[in-house]
Formats: sequence, structure tokens, C-alpha cells
Amino acid sequence: MYNIEVCLSPELIHLYQPEGKTVVVTDIFRATSCMVSGLAKGVKQIKTVAEIEESVPFHEQGYFRAGERNGNKIEGFELGNSPFDFIEEQYIGERIVMTTTNGTRAISLSQKADQIVIGAFLNLKAVTEYLSQPEKDLLIVCAGWKGRFSMEDTLFAGALCSELKDNYESNDDSALAANSLYQLAKNDLYGYLLQASHTKRLDGLKFKKDIHFCLDKNQFSNVPVLKEGFIENA
Amino acid sequence: MYNIEVCLSPELIHLYQPEGKTVVVTDIFRATSCMVSGLAKGVKQIKTVAEIEESVPFHEQGYFRAGERNGNKIEGFELGNSPFDFIEEQYIGERIVMTTTNGTRAISLSQKADQIVIGAFLNLKAVTEYLSQPEKDLLIVCAGWKGRFSMEDTLFAGALCSELKDNYESNDDSALAANSLYQLAKNDLYGYLLQASHTKRLDGLKFKKDIHFCLDKNQFSNVPVLKEGFIENA
Repeated sequence: MYNIEVCLSPELIHLYQPEGKTVVVTDIFRATSCMVSGLAKGVKQIKTVAEIEESVPFHEQGYFRAGERNGNKIEGFELGNSPFDFIEEQYIGERIVMTTTNGTRAISLSQKADQIVIGAFLNLKAVTEYLSQPEKDLLIVCAGWKGRFSMEDTLFAGALCSELKDNYESNDDSALAANSLYQLAKNDLYGYLLQASHTKRLDGLKFKKDIHFCLDKNQFSNVPVLKEGFIENA
Repeated sequence: MYNIEVCLSPELIHLYQPEGKTVVVTDIFRATSCMVSGLAKGVKQIKTVAEIEESVPFHEQGYFRAGERNGNKIEGFELGNSPFDFIEEQYIGERIVMTTTNGTRAISLSQKADQIVIGAFLNLKAVTEYLSQPEKDLLIVCAGWKGRFSMEDTLFAGALCSELKDNYESNDDSALAANSLYQLAKNDLYGYLLQASHTKRLDGLKFKKDIHFCLDKNQFSNVPVLKEGFIENA
């Protein structure tokens, strides 16, 4: 039987050997929720880059630019880091270059995996079905917040572990913790997350609508994957 | 109000800045449980070293040697890594040099803290009282297992956060997770930990008695601290 593990922060990924595994990257608030939403609604392709400057050559090729720094849309960019930006009609059929910190870093550090899948509560069921016939070991990588453990990403990891518990075996304390936390919080994710640092940060700003949207399970049925450096639906 | 945070693995300590803080190091199975037990029962002083070779000069000065590799006592050493070894009468008034991997690493990476306190379930109440008049921010460092998250250390961190919740404020997702997990598990720590990897490892060996002993709260009232590189009761 194949194994399932949870890496609670990109800073721990050297302990988990993504090589030969399927990696699910998650950054609930809000990078992977944006990706899933946009690609579900017709965005053709998403490229992630770490720095604003790296987006320039893609923009010159016709990519729209998305990203934020400290909760604000980057000056001159067409999209911020809200899933509502990504589902606007004008981006159907278009390509987007996205600069994020935590999500991009998690994807980049998982590069050696056999396959990288983009997960969020929005496509939980679709990702579950996609991974339900195991062919490799599975590693869920939580993007975290500046390298630290983040509750919302861990809850998603727990949800996925819980859904896949009959398909994979697990001997990993992180997976046990994620699953226990999800069982505790699943009936009121928003209420539980109100105690968490990132929710406090976002809730104090203008993102309450985003938070509710990102926690709404199974709104979309697409499974974005990384193909030669670009994110597209599988 | 001073702050309380939980560092879930020594691999994340660069994100937490121990400088200027009080750090509580915990390695429930079994380094800090051994230290608390031994010092409670009359051991005079404990020195931790990473490598077997480093214990030699201390042994030549009369220190007894303690440690294990892969669950077995090191050849020629007087003590293993069981708390029952540390509470033997023959070590009253004696000094012990101890070689462990996870616990030693956690202590060594916390060196820049203003003070390092040794915590275990065995002295939970004593540590709580010792820290209940905050003078600095508090950081709980879980020793983990080979750098990974470990459930038993996280549960202790959650117990301490829970006991100190009126004395410190917290805006840390790791502390929230640790506290939630402890609330879930506290009425049957052993039963909950039977699902965890380290317990499975130890339970399969000859350590069931050690596990029960290490999870038994408030058996001892001493608070070991690091003083100029050596661990003694405060």
C-alpha cells in the first residue's frame, strides 16, 4: 500500500524527499484557491514566479499579471490575490503570471516530485478522486506563512488525509495531527479559524468574503497540475 | 502582556528568534523525561553532548555516561535512555553526561535564549508555576524526531500553553494546534499516542513501561534549567 505524509511547512521539505512521489501543494489563503478558481472558470494557464521582475517577460508575451504584497494588489497588475479576481469573465482563455510568496516557494521546493497537484477546499473532492487509485506515495505540502506552520493549510491536509484514509497508509505524526485538527474543525472551519493568526490578519482587512469563498468545499471539479513549469487542468 | 509561541521542530527555530526569550525544551520520549526524573531523585548535574566521543572527557572527570542509539544502550555506558535508569539510587549526588540526538539538538539550537528550561509531563505543574509570572516572551521548542514534527512533544507544548493561557497571549497557529490536540488527547494521552509513530516504534520494543512513566503528569516538582552549559535544578 502506498503511503501518505504531510509536510507542515516548506522549511521541512528536505526531510520528506518529494522525488518519486505525487505532491499536493496547498496554500488556502489564497494562492491555490485562486489557481483552482481561475482554471475552473476558463483561465488557460497559470505561471508562478517569486519576484515581481520575473513577471515582466511573461507579461510581454500577453500574460495578465496577478499578485499582492502585504495584502495589496501590486501597482500596475491586473489581478490581486483574490479568487474573485481570477473568476472574472475577461480571463477566460487567457494566461496569467502570478507572483506569490508562500505558494510559489512550496511549488518550487517540490519540483523534484513526479507530479505536482494544486489542492484547495474548493476542489477537495476532485483531488480526492484524482488520487484515489494510488500509483505512488503521496506528500501534501502546506505552503505555510513565511515558513511557519499555518492552520488553514494544515486543515486542508487533514481533510485530504481523511478522505483518502482507505486508499493510503500513514505512519506520520503530521498526518495524524492534521487529521485530528480537521475532525475538530470540519463542521465550522470558519469559526475554528477565527482563532488562527492568518484569519485574524485577513479578517481585519477586507478579505472576509475571500475567506468564506476559500473555505467552501467542492465548488469546482478541476484538478490543476504542474506541466513543464506551467499550471493547467489535468 | 508577554507572548507564547510553539516551535514544532528544531528545523524551524530560525523562524522564532530565541534571543531574549525563555525557551522550554521538551523531548518527551525520552530525553527531557530522563533529565527531570534524574535531577528530581538527586542527580547533581547533567551535561548533554551530540556525539559519543564528546562524552569521553566528561567520563574521565567522573561523569556517568547515558545514551542510546536506535533503541539500544550504548556499549560500555552505565545508563541507557530510560527514566528508570536515571532514578537509580547509585546516581544520587552524581553527574551524568548524556548523548541524545533530538533533545541535544533542540537545546543546542536554543542556546541564544536568555534561559533554557527543561520540560516534561513529569514536571508540567512545576514548570507552569515557574513561568507563571512572565518576565519575557516564552518559546516552547519541541525536539521532534530527526527534525520532524512529533506528536508527544506537541501534546506537551499544548498542555503548557493551556496551563499558561491566562499568563501569556498567543497569536501563533502552532500554539493553537498544540492546544487543540492536547484538549483532544488529554484524558487518554496513551490511547491517543498509540496512533502516533514514535509510540508505535517504542511500543513495539521494550518501552511500554517507559511510555506510561513519561506520560504521568506532575510526578516531580523540580525545574531543570541550563546553567553555563550544564543542566541543574533551578
